[in-house]
Formats: sequence, C-alpha cells, structure tokens
Amino acid sequence: MQMDGGIRVAVPAHITGFFSVHRADDPLETGSRGAGVTLADAIHVDIEPADESTIVLDGREVDIPAVDHVLDRFSIEAAVRASLTVPVGAGFGVSGAVALGTAFGVNQLARGRYSENEVVAIAHVADVTAGTGLGDVVAQHRGGIPIRIEPGGPGYGTLDGIPERRQVEWLCIGELSTEEIISGETEIINSVGARALAGLREEPTLKRFMHESVKFAREAGLVTEALETIIRDVEDAGGSASMAMLGETVFAVGDGLSSAGYDVTTHDMATGGVRIIDPSRAD
Amino acid sequence: MQMDGGIRVAVPAHITGFFSVHRADDPLETGSRGAGVTLADAIHVDIEPADESTIVLDGREVDIPAVDHVLDRFSIEAAVRASLTVPVGAGFGVSGAVALGTAFGVNQLARGRYSENEVVAIAHVADVTAGTGLGDVVAQHRGGIPIRIEPGGPGYGTLDGIPERRQVEWLCIGELSTEEIISGETEIINSVGARALAGLREEPTLKRFMHESVKFAREAGLVTEALETIIRDVEDAGGSASMAMLGETVFAVGDGLSSAGYDVTTHDMATGGVRIIDPSRAD
Repeated sequence: MQMDGGIRVAVPAHITGFFSVHRADDPLETGSRGAGVTLADAIHVDIEPADESTIVLDGREVDIPAVDHVLDRFSIEAAVRASLTVPVGAGFGVSGAVALGTAFGVNQLARGRYSENEVVAIAHVADVTAGTGLGDVVAQHRGGIPIRIEPGGPGYGTLDGIPERRQVEWLCIGELSTEEIISGETEIINSVGARALAGLREEPTLKRFMHESVKFAREAGLVTEALETIIRDVEDAGGSASMAMLGETVFAVGDGLSSAGYDVTTHDMATGGVRIIDPSRAD
Repeated sequence: MQMDGGIRVAVPAHITGFFSVHRADDPLETGSRGAGVTLADAIHVDIEPADESTIVLDGREVDIPAVDHVLDRFSIEAAVRASLTVPVGAGFGVSGAVALGTAFGVNQLARGRYSENEVVAIAHVADVTAGTGLGDVVAQHRGGIPIRIEPGGPGYGTLDGIPERRQVEWLCIGELSTEEIISGETEIINSVGARALAGLREEPTLKRFMHESVKFAREAGLVTEALETIIRDVEDAGGSASMAMLGETVFAVGDGLSSAGYDVTTHDMATGGVRIIDPSRAD
C-alpha cells in the first residue's frame, strides 16, 4: 500500500475499573466485559511513510507487538511516533491506543478501503493477539465512560455507557503485567467481574461505577497494600477511588485524590474516540 | 424527578448526504439508512430546573415537539436554552440535537437511572415521533462521518463510519420542511438511497461519500436550481459539494466551497458525540 505525507491521530487512554475475560478461537470474538473511563487526547500518534517500520515512544525506540500486527495487516512500513501523557504498563491501555491510532493513521494515509468499524476491528485483533488488551480498543473508540456489555470487536461486542462526564484524577506508583494476569487463572476475576457488571447495569451512574470498581478490585485480590492505603485515604476524605486494571495506579472521578492531599494528574474525559489531526492532504 | 443546579451540553450538528426511510410500528425501530457528516460543538443546550418548561432558541421562545417528548418522558419541567452556530430547518438536524442534549442534561441533573444508550433511545424516539428526524440523533451521538447501516435507535440500528476527518464548509440559502418530505412519497428516495449506501459500503471514503451524496440528491430530484448552480461552481473549481438533507444548504468537505469563491461557514468534524460541560455537582 502506498502512503502520502504524514498524519497525527489523538487517542484516549482507557482505565478499566472492572472486567471479566472472554476467550474465543477468533480474536475478533475474544474480549472482555466490564466498564472504565476514557481520558481525552492522552496519546498522540504520528505516522509517516518509511522504508522500514520503527516505533518510538516518547523519544525511545520500543517494540509494541500490537502495532506490528496492525502494520502487518496493512502490509505497510511506517515510522510510528507516539507521545504519552500517561505511563506505560500502568493500566491506561497504551498498547491498544497506539495500535488504534496507527490503524486510523495508516488507513487514511494509504487511502485504504476500510470502514471505521473495520479499522477498529484490526486494532482490537492486534491488541488481543499481542496479549496486551481485551477491551481497551473498543472502549477508546467509543469514548466517555464505556460499558462493555458483550465482549469482542465491532460486529461481536456491544457497548453502552454512563451518560455523565467528570474529570479524572490518577496517581501511578508502579507497573503490573496485563499479559501475566489476563493469561493466567481468571476464574475469580470472571465471577466478581460479572457481578460488578450486573450491579452497574441496574444503576448506570458514575457513583455506582466507582463502588463496583473498588469492590471488584478488592474481591479479586488485585489491590496491593500501597494502593489500599491510598484508596482508604480518599474514602476517609469522603471521596471514592479505585485501581486501574491493570497497573499500580489509583484513579478517582472529580477531585477525590487531590482532596485527600495527593499530587495527581488530571484529565478531561474523552467525548468520543479517535481524533485525526491535520490530515494535510487535498482531495 | 428532582433536579439540582444547571448543566450545559454540546451536541454536534448532522448533515445527511443521502438516506432511505424505514418505518415500523415502534418508533425505536423506525429510522433511516444513509450517511452524513457531523459538525463539532455546533449546538449548545443549557438545562435548568424550572416550574414550567420553556424552550428558547437563540433568545427566542420556540416550540420543539421533540424536546417536549423528552421532557415528558422524564416527567420533568425544565428551562431549555439552546444556542446554535447552524440554521434551523436547513438540514443540520437541530431538532434531534436539542432533544439529545436535553435528554443527556436532564438525565444527569435529575440523577436519572438511564444508561447512555437509553438516553440516546429517548431522544431518537422523540425526534421520530415529532416527525422532525429519522437518523440525526444516532448520528450525532456517534460523531465523525456516520454511516447508518441499519435503521433505528440503540438496540435496533447499527452504525459504521468513514475513518477520515476533514473540515466541513456550508452555505445556506433557504429552508425546506423535513416533515413534509419524509412523511410524503419516499419510493424514489428509498431506491436511490439504497444504491448510494451500497456504493459507499464498497468504498467507505469521504471522496465516495461526496460522489454518492450529490448523485442521490440529483436522482431523487431534490436539488433546487439555486443549489445546482452552486454545486456546479464547486465542481468546476475541481471540488465536490452536495446538498444537506433536508435544507436549501450546500456542504463541502475540505475547502470546496471557499475555493469556488463562496462565503462560507467552516466547522471541524465532531470527534465523538455529546459533550457535557461543567457538570457543577460534587459526588
């Protein structure tokens, strides 16, 4: 496929509050149920034609298997440069976001013939196949506060959302391996995750989302001691916080964390999904 | 239902390029297939609790039956004030946008228990029942360049999109009645609309969208002489333009209209759907 010029795509980050894992033979049918929040414009991806593909994350050359999968699918060589306002390996769905941004960018630059749902499907399959995410891509594409009702990419998964918007605060104290946890024993996660989803669907509000998220994190035994201390501090100050799935990260909606005295990063929620900036090509 | 404070919601406008009409007994199943472009933040809706409901559009009290339907559904009295950057009755889906903004605003203020899809469904049913729109609400909620593959609100309709983003230019020279045209004889519209959709799905690009839109407008016999003159001027200047369904409005992507010497209004495409601004309430 031939490409012209260069293109920049802004993609939301996605923090999962709770989830359950659903595997199928087809990676497009594989995914997760659950819910999370999306953070506006958290990841910028620049795509340019190149003789050999490279992936640079905040100035450092890295390997992101999900992005390799996307480039392979388009049979294209490209220089992918991503700049982040969120940390890697900390529960923000960065792999999925860079894969999604790359898929949109490459499709537009290469004057591809894929529809938007097909582009999302390519990125979802890439993230699932790489083992780095199960639901981030579809959530990032929807924006807002996505509820993943049925697992999988476009055509299989179904999404709803919570019709509220607040700022999101977060504080990261370490990394966790998504791949290790979602490829391991997920029986407890699946049963607690299904209960959390049923609770949220009864009352699809942000307040209930935070309640179900922290309950899930504790019952699934994923909360580290350091995270538990921070979450309790927020609760003692009258707010609610939970843990990003999967990272050593605490998040809160509104000003829960800063009110409890923590030094945080604040994001607006993403309105919708991917934003293509300055396509710089004439018709 | 009780409400606190006030809330502002920004909703995209939606210009339909081509469509076909699909009626069912249930207004949630009723809708249209087709495709269009969404214009970011084109309509702002402010909602405040009130003793008696009023709807004010750019400072003038008006009647918008779709908004009445939404307020009835929530059993609520509210002061709805909308400010527009697009004209009314000119093919921008203003009725649907104000209904959608009202539904989001009222649900959040009243601490409603509806999910996002349910809020969208309420606004879709309101617009359909009022006879003012068939697909604007679901398109505005998706943002970007929505393709309405299957008609109807959430749970029935299915959407895809064109994964490109460009600026949109438009020029309005008069009004047309949506209600009159979509409630009348739609046999020709439906057959030309179905062909246009099949063409776009073969090649889901902006270029093809503009091609199918202008072909649809001409074959359906909807293009007035004044509109045809402007569209030809754009084509003569090497661009492509079409007619907004349904208004005496010409739109172009990129700089088609301004390059042909017309004085236009320019919008960014909407990334995603509804934006809730400053919810101004603590948890």
